[in-house]
Amino acid sequence: MDFFFSPKSVAVIGASPNPLKGGNSILRNLISTFKGKIYPVNPKYKTVEGLESYPSAREIPGKVDTAIIFVPAKEVLSSVRDCAAKGILGVIIESAGFAETGQSGAKLQEQLLEIKRETGIRLWGPNCMGLVDGVKGHVFSFMVPEAIKGGLLGGHVSLIVQSGMLSGGFLMDIISNRITGINKVCSVGNKIDVDECDLMEYMEKEEQTRVIGMYLESIVDGRRFIELCRRSSKPIVVLKGGKSASGAQAAISHTAALAGNNRIIEGALNQAGVIEARDFKQMVDICRCLAIYPRKPAGSGRVSILTASGGAGIVATDFIEEFQLSLADFSDSTRIKLQKLFPEWMPVNNPVDIWPAIEHSMGGGLDVYREALDSLIADSGVDAILICGFAGNAKVLFDMAAIAEKSKKSGKPVFIWLFGLRDAFFEAQKEAISHGVPIFQELERAMECLAKVLHQKEKLCASSEAPAEAKEIYEISTDIIQNNHGHLDEYDSKKILRAHGIDCVKERIAATLDDCLRFADEIGYPLVMKGIITGDIHKTEKGLVYLGISDGNAVKKTYEELTAKMEHAGKVLLQKQVTGKIELIAGMLRDPHFGPCVMFGLGGIMAEAFNQSFFALAPLSPEDALKLIERFPAQKIFDGFRGNPSLDRKKFAEILVALGNIGLLYPGIKEIDVNPLIVTPQGPVAVDAAIILG
Amino acid sequence: MDFFFSPKSVAVIGASPNPLKGGNSILRNLISTFKGKIYPVNPKYKTVEGLESYPSAREIPGKVDTAIIFVPAKEVLSSVRDCAAKGILGVIIESAGFAETGQSGAKLQEQLLEIKRETGIRLWGPNCMGLVDGVKGHVFSFMVPEAIKGGLLGGHVSLIVQSGMLSGGFLMDIISNRITGINKVCSVGNKIDVDECDLMEYMEKEEQTRVIGMYLESIVDGRRFIELCRRSSKPIVVLKGGKSASGAQAAISHTAALAGNNRIIEGALNQAGVIEARDFKQMVDICRCLAIYPRKPAGSGRVSILTASGGAGIVATDFIEEFQLSLADFSDSTRIKLQKLFPEWMPVNNPVDIWPAIEHSMGGGLDVYREALDSLIADSGVDAILICGFAGNAKVLFDMAAIAEKSKKSGKPVFIWLFGLRDAFFEAQKEAISHGVPIFQELERAMECLAKVLHQKEKLCASSEAPAEAKEIYEISTDIIQNNHGHLDEYDSKKILRAHGIDCVKERIAATLDDCLRFADEIGYPLVMKGIITGDIHKTEKGLVYLGISDGNAVKKTYEELTAKMEHAGKVLLQKQVTGKIELIAGMLRDPHFGPCVMFGLGGIMAEAFNQSFFALAPLSPEDALKLIERFPAQKIFDGFRGNPSLDRKKFAEILVALGNIGLLYPGIKEIDVNPLIVTPQGPVAVDAAIILG
Repeated sequence: MDFFFSPKSVAVIGASPNPLKGGNSILRNLISTFKGKIYPVNPKYKTVEGLESYPSAREIPGKVDTAIIFVPAKEVLSSVRDCAAKGILGVIIESAGFAETGQSGAKLQEQLLEIKRETGIRLWGPNCMGLVDGVKGHVFSFMVPEAIKGGLLGGHVSLIVQSGMLSGGFLMDIISNRITGINKVCSVGNKIDVDECDLMEYMEKEEQTRVIGMYLESIVDGRRFIELCRRSSKPIVVLKGGKSASGAQAAISHTAALAGNNRIIEGALNQAGVIEARDFKQMVDICRCLAIYPRKPAGSGRVSILTASGGAGIVATDFIEEFQLSLADFSDSTRIKLQKLFPEWMPVNNPVDIWPAIEHSMGGGLDVYREALDSLIADSGVDAILICGFAGNAKVLFDMAAIAEKSKKSGKPVFIWLFGLRDAFFEAQKEAISHGVPIFQELERAMECLAKVLHQKEKLCASSEAPAEAKEIYEISTDIIQNNHGHLDEYDSKKILRAHGIDCVKERIAATLDDCLRFADEIGYPLVMKGIITGDIHKTEKGLVYLGISDGNAVKKTYEELTAKMEHAGKVLLQKQVTGKIELIAGMLRDPHFGPCVMFGLGGIMAEAFNQSFFALAPLSPEDALKLIERFPAQKIFDGFRGNPSLDRKKFAEILVALGNIGLLYPGIKEIDVNPLIVTPQGPVAVDAAIILG
Repeated sequence: MDFFFSPKSVAVIGASPNPLKGGNSILRNLISTFKGKIYPVNPKYKTVEGLESYPSAREIPGKVDTAIIFVPAKEVLSSVRDCAAKGILGVIIESAGFAETGQSGAKLQEQLLEIKRETGIRLWGPNCMGLVDGVKGHVFSFMVPEAIKGGLLGGHVSLIVQSGMLSGGFLMDIISNRITGINKVCSVGNKIDVDECDLMEYMEKEEQTRVIGMYLESIVDGRRFIELCRRSSKPIVVLKGGKSASGAQAAISHTAALAGNNRIIEGALNQAGVIEARDFKQMVDICRCLAIYPRKPAGSGRVSILTASGGAGIVATDFIEEFQLSLADFSDSTRIKLQKLFPEWMPVNNPVDIWPAIEHSMGGGLDVYREALDSLIADSGVDAILICGFAGNAKVLFDMAAIAEKSKKSGKPVFIWLFGLRDAFFEAQKEAISHGVPIFQELERAMECLAKVLHQKEKLCASSEAPAEAKEIYEISTDIIQNNHGHLDEYDSKKILRAHGIDCVKERIAATLDDCLRFADEIGYPLVMKGIITGDIHKTEKGLVYLGISDGNAVKKTYEELTAKMEHAGKVLLQKQVTGKIELIAGMLRDPHFGPCVMFGLGGIMAEAFNQSFFALAPLSPEDALKLIERFPAQKIFDGFRGNPSLDRKKFAEILVALGNIGLLYPGIKEIDVNPLIVTPQGPVAVDAAIILG
């Protein structure tokens, strides 16, 4: 893909002399930012913006690495053919009017892909704003040249954005507000060929990119995407648009893309170590911090606060708790060093309320900050520092270069929240950004981003945890799947689960009362008896479940009631009655984008009430499964809470691994529901289950 | 308090000619902003800043309404005495060095209060930044005069801030960033006399204030505060600092104030219709929106999105779901009107992606926005509109005056999220703020604030819901309380609960096996038997609870085991075994700031796991109690979910009212725990309970 990112020569198909047209903006942006050869293409003109113009790409004399196409949709096909004929390896199609506009546009899009298949030419877009490279300074986009007159600021954040306006307008926002330096901003539009996966692969190898931020409305190849994220050595931040039910609808109408299921995507991103963002600027804020600290800093997230405002220290402390960080406890030597800065009456504590020290020092504000910061950085009990300061007071200006240097040397993040005068803040921000010090206008955002930095997962471990392979197919399962359709009954469902090592309740299926009595003795009382009708999964609602059967008489009575209710059409299932207050649910779901996904959650009446279910993509390694279990927030109910048996996490992880493997091994299985899985002292036991074929 | 807010003459005690001193800033701020008479007081000078200076307040010839004191802490007492002698009604003490600095400062503070008690003079502060009035233009504060050189912007937001730096520095932030017009910003410091309650009372009557925002580290008189909030006709937004365990610690060391319990404060604020904020700027953002829309707009929160970016529309839609709003469904006539603006291929939908219409109109961007907005406002199915736009493109500038006018006329909020060029955004913001159009830099914040406006409670109803009175004291309760100490056993606890009409499990206490057998027949099987040892509440952990006792033999066996375990020192309690999967917890807690508070939550093993408990101040009206129950997020488990009995909310509300009344009637009761309260078809039944005296 170097022809897109580092071309030596670029053609502009649709170059225009009219400054109101995109084809003019593209050309002027190239002229002012691109140092290679530029070839305008437009049959109507001899020259455009002072450069010789060619009637078609075929006529260009020299070698052309890439072309930017901005002609009406119906002319795009022939332009691309010309480019391919010229030997151009890839084109960036910025024109709109394709699948996003309905049927006929979608057909055009299909024809474009046809050309790609024939010629091998790579297609970027259509319906996009192309590519901006902050480090090289290239602008391959129709954004108005005036918008970047302040100049691009090169940096280490690369963005992949599936929204034209947002990539262009948003980039101008980032540039003009000096929020962060950037490396590449890629607007992928309808991404018929070049997509987020291709770009991620490229950026993974490319040194300048330290963090990748993405706004995505669809993830076409979910499995490849997650695999790339998982293997990436760089932090990845994703804002997924269209996660709500109604949002998903908007996504369809906007980019003709199917938005995936919220929970599955959340689970998959989590599993791959991706940080999820909620909003556009928040995403960039997280990215710019991770670009400075792309690896998890040492320590356990113990934060020291150095503040010019006691109130800010208090609210920052509240955020520390909210974002699961902790307030650092100072060593005695730190306390002694700090105390020297303060008047005697002021006990030194975290947060360090610096104001009395500044007043005490009679105007030596900067020195006080510096000395306090040095003491905090030197304390081995401090993992990171938040400075809360006021912008506008000459006494407390910060030496951003020195702060950056100290942070780099110690490996301890130093974040700044500043409030105060608009211009003073902006000056401080420019200074901070240029030296690589994270600075914020809102305290909560500062703390949230600090937490993201401190809570980073060890990226390098990810690749070593290769998931287990799904191997053995059992005949019994294949038989059941081949001889049924729709819903398997719980007896058959559990046969498949058992074949894969999932511990299920002891049970026998009986055709006669004699069978029932014999099996009851074999299983042992108390028993559960259920009526099983093939294809019917509403046993409880139909009164076909009898609990607490304690002797032969009860078996007889229940048998008679069940057969009457089923009008002698079903069978009777006898089960050992499993008791336990902690009920879990586990399952497998085949997602159109992500394939087989494993789910687990709280079972019983709390399952739906609290919406506590978590997804991950199969196959799972045992470590993956343990991590999935760890996502459940109320772990203490798994730890033998209030006299209940504790959950054997290892055994439960094996069940989750097995569920994923079943999904991978038998494409005929659409869905598995194991509900409830009861936590017993011997491990979790599947008591009821349903497998759905299809 | 008019002498503070509308004085005709002000003395500055500690007026200084040194521009680096606060006493100089105060005087210069007065000279440039205050139109009344100004009297500098400083024995060292004849004149200060060109005004005649007096050696003491006593020597001032004319009448003085208020004085601002900024002298070293140890001189404050005599200055206040001088002011009182002069007949000044109130002083604003901006000096620091009081309780926030430790013991000796606290003593000074106590002496200040002594003067107040003797003379009746009102004291504002100390350790504060005084008062700024954006409408009158007064600055009674030592903030540096240069900081407000841009001029104050008058408005309808009033702030009460318990943090000096934050009130001063933060005000400069608001002013210089043109975030909102303000009315009064009151920095209350250590609030030894004038506190948030006094100021709220004043602002309630004052027309210019439409919304009150507060940053508080302590709420001294919790009951009065909540009562004022409850009765206020104006929206109130509170950021409570020191809510976390560690934050509370920081609060103590900072303003010598006890931070209240997080949950209780949250509950109390919720009960009083207060909106809680998380962060400083977020608080101001909510306030500025409520100042424009101080009453709940009509409708059910159906939002239409008008966006220049499809991506923004998608993410805004996701936020609509997150903030519990809904996407408006357009009427046919709206669709027809909108469709005329769009190219044919583009179906009109909510979000309205305006870009194709702008391109279709050939540059008539402003007209397209206007026409679309008019159609949306005219649609009776649309309650509010969010515009997402780009700042920096001349084609899509907004006519803020017209937008404000349309919003006012229709009563429908119109919010704007703009991204783009820094300067263009700032110009748009200034324009928007001056006309009263809420505008935002972050999409999430825009949606959050819109939700706060649309979810407002009907403030005027609050006062009509007077809570129930706690009246009848029962002898049985008084007897038990007088004859015990520490923990009451569950039998005695339930006697008190029953006296107040709380339905408890049928039970008898037995001394002998004969009693047990007799009571068992009376209550009916299955039974629960418990061993009761006075003062011991760990029955379950000690194996003193036996469930499922089904006949006389079992009673006998259990009796023997229990008496053996208790070493014949306790009694045996026999209870009807109550079954039900839904277990609740309810209780009462006497808080030092808020008095008796009622609590309810989920019982059983999920209680602690999910931390679902909610507080309200007693007394509760039945309506209050129902609202408390409604705060529980998973209401569906109360609605006869999955075959469980539904919760009789009215009966449960009566229990909560009764618990509050018990707290009010018997000061000897410190705490009540009813756990579990089991939901049965006949209503919730208290199965176990503990009352703690003290």
